[in-house]
Amino acid sequence: MGAVLPVGTSTSVRVPGSSANLGPGFDCLGIALGVSDDVDVTVVDEGLTVEVTGEGAGGVPLDEAHLVVRALRRGLDVAGVSAPGLHVRCVNRIPHSRGLGSSAAAAVGGLAAASGLVSAAGVAPRFGHDELIQLSSEFEGHPDNAAASVLGGAVVSWTEVADAGSAASGADSAAEASAGGCRYFARSIPLHDDLAVSAFVPAVESSTSVTRGLLPDSVARADAVFNVSRSALAVIALSRDPECLFAATQDRLHQHYRAPVMRPSAELVAGLRQMGLAAVISGAGPTVLVLRWKSLPPAAGELAARLGFSVVEPPIADGVSIV
Amino acid sequence: MGAVLPVGTSTSVRVPGSSANLGPGFDCLGIALGVSDDVDVTVVDEGLTVEVTGEGAGGVPLDEAHLVVRALRRGLDVAGVSAPGLHVRCVNRIPHSRGLGSSAAAAVGGLAAASGLVSAAGVAPRFGHDELIQLSSEFEGHPDNAAASVLGGAVVSWTEVADAGSAASGADSAAEASAGGCRYFARSIPLHDDLAVSAFVPAVESSTSVTRGLLPDSVARADAVFNVSRSALAVIALSRDPECLFAATQDRLHQHYRAPVMRPSAELVAGLRQMGLAAVISGAGPTVLVLRWKSLPPAAGELAARLGFSVVEPPIADGVSIV
Repeated sequence: MGAVLPVGTSTSVRVPGSSANLGPGFDCLGIALGVSDDVDVTVVDEGLTVEVTGEGAGGVPLDEAHLVVRALRRGLDVAGVSAPGLHVRCVNRIPHSRGLGSSAAAAVGGLAAASGLVSAAGVAPRFGHDELIQLSSEFEGHPDNAAASVLGGAVVSWTEVADAGSAASGADSAAEASAGGCRYFARSIPLHDDLAVSAFVPAVESSTSVTRGLLPDSVARADAVFNVSRSALAVIALSRDPECLFAATQDRLHQHYRAPVMRPSAELVAGLRQMGLAAVISGAGPTVLVLRWKSLPPAAGELAARLGFSVVEPPIADGVSIV
Repeated sequence: MGAVLPVGTSTSVRVPGSSANLGPGFDCLGIALGVSDDVDVTVVDEGLTVEVTGEGAGGVPLDEAHLVVRALRRGLDVAGVSAPGLHVRCVNRIPHSRGLGSSAAAAVGGLAAASGLVSAAGVAPRFGHDELIQLSSEFEGHPDNAAASVLGGAVVSWTEVADAGSAASGADSAAEASAGGCRYFARSIPLHDDLAVSAFVPAVESSTSVTRGLLPDSVARADAVFNVSRSALAVIALSRDPECLFAATQDRLHQHYRAPVMRPSAELVAGLRQMGLAAVISGAGPTVLVLRWKSLPPAAGELAARLGFSVVEPPIADGVSIV
């Protein structure tokens, strides 16, 4: 904990939300969505002030318990620096508790802000992408969302549990075993030019911790094999053959287990798929995502409206940026 | 069963062997290997004669029970033609019962020969790739091997069971529901220029039906998720990032269950992976495959020799060709 950041050092970060799973790719596939949060941090004389506008304003703590602040502190710790005081301003646009990766984005945003501060002060280089993925994933627990927020575009992430042949894993040194013992990795999936997404966002919220509890500890081998083939196909569909997106978004490992706690979302997915659309539950829900290469049919919007979902069509986003 | 093929009509087919699974991609990933069988068929006055040289000579039936002949008959049936008599000559190079896709290649070879005959006689067009994949997969049961033999290069295959939302599956019409009710599909995975393979072939044979019986009907969800991420990563590794091949060839769904009946293969995989090589069991074994982007270290060959394996380094093959 050597260097102290000079008062007045500041940074601005923009970090996109994301959609994880994409159907078959439970806990590994993700895509960054152009609905972003901004984090502006300035080093001040003393204390901590947190301002939040937009999503979550009034509902999130404005102290050290704030997720962005905790990630920011973690990043400063890792960089070995401290700040006499901090002013943190968050402009939140990613809806909370909807399966759009707002928590992972907050973690990436706080860590990237730490990276921006130490770099602006000239006391350390910025974190590389691999390190941001590692730190944000171990901090927040969703490498599929975190990697999408870091890298932008679509990603495949994977996790190596320590002692599982790590010596020979060919992993690079940037991601050493974390306190939790997991190392997190991700690679970008190149995207076909025609690929676009529509997000169907409901008014109701969801809890990942609740929905995760609905998943059984064991699954049929046939279902595992089913998803193994579709997740491989998803990479092909996203990068070069969008006409395969329907087949590539089939899932047997998670969505139907969670359907009972998000009936409208399950009904919307089923209805959209009946239209031939590659509809999936976004993350742990309840948002529904459609991966597409042409416009939505009007019937899709009508069904969404009837079930209480708002349709947004964000661009596929670039990764986190530090100004 | 309208047209009768004229006596003298002939065709020559070359069909590559293949390696399936590639670690995580159980029953869905495959790669074509440049060790090929040739099938030459001529329409004759009457009867059936079968000549086999090379692998399997003396050990396979030389009558209607011969796998290539059965596939050939099936292809002629589908095309709606018959032949007064057939002379079939097989030159086999793909080792049998080693996990190198010889049965799938025989099915593809026979069907492609039927396609070649009807086309040569001008009575019907050749089967398209989609139809060859469908017919050979339903005939032989391994779409990952069959698709690799048809398309060449690396493939991801998937299976749609009838009544599982087939109306909205977006599938093309070429592959209608088969008698068995499954429709088989595959897409090519583009390959990185540096990608190469080494196959470690033992003297002993294996039986897919026996090794398949070793797999449990249910698996841990964590193991399923593990393979889901690695199979998606495998597509990235094969097509654009071979340095990920080691991580992308990890498996928890099949190899360790089968290890007890192929100890030398399991030991070889473990030893090669200790060297950082992306080693996997080829298909149901006992051949071991290494996916690589640089030369094998000498220690790999030494270990293979000590364990009784011959090393071959076939090119990655193009798909079946009809002369």
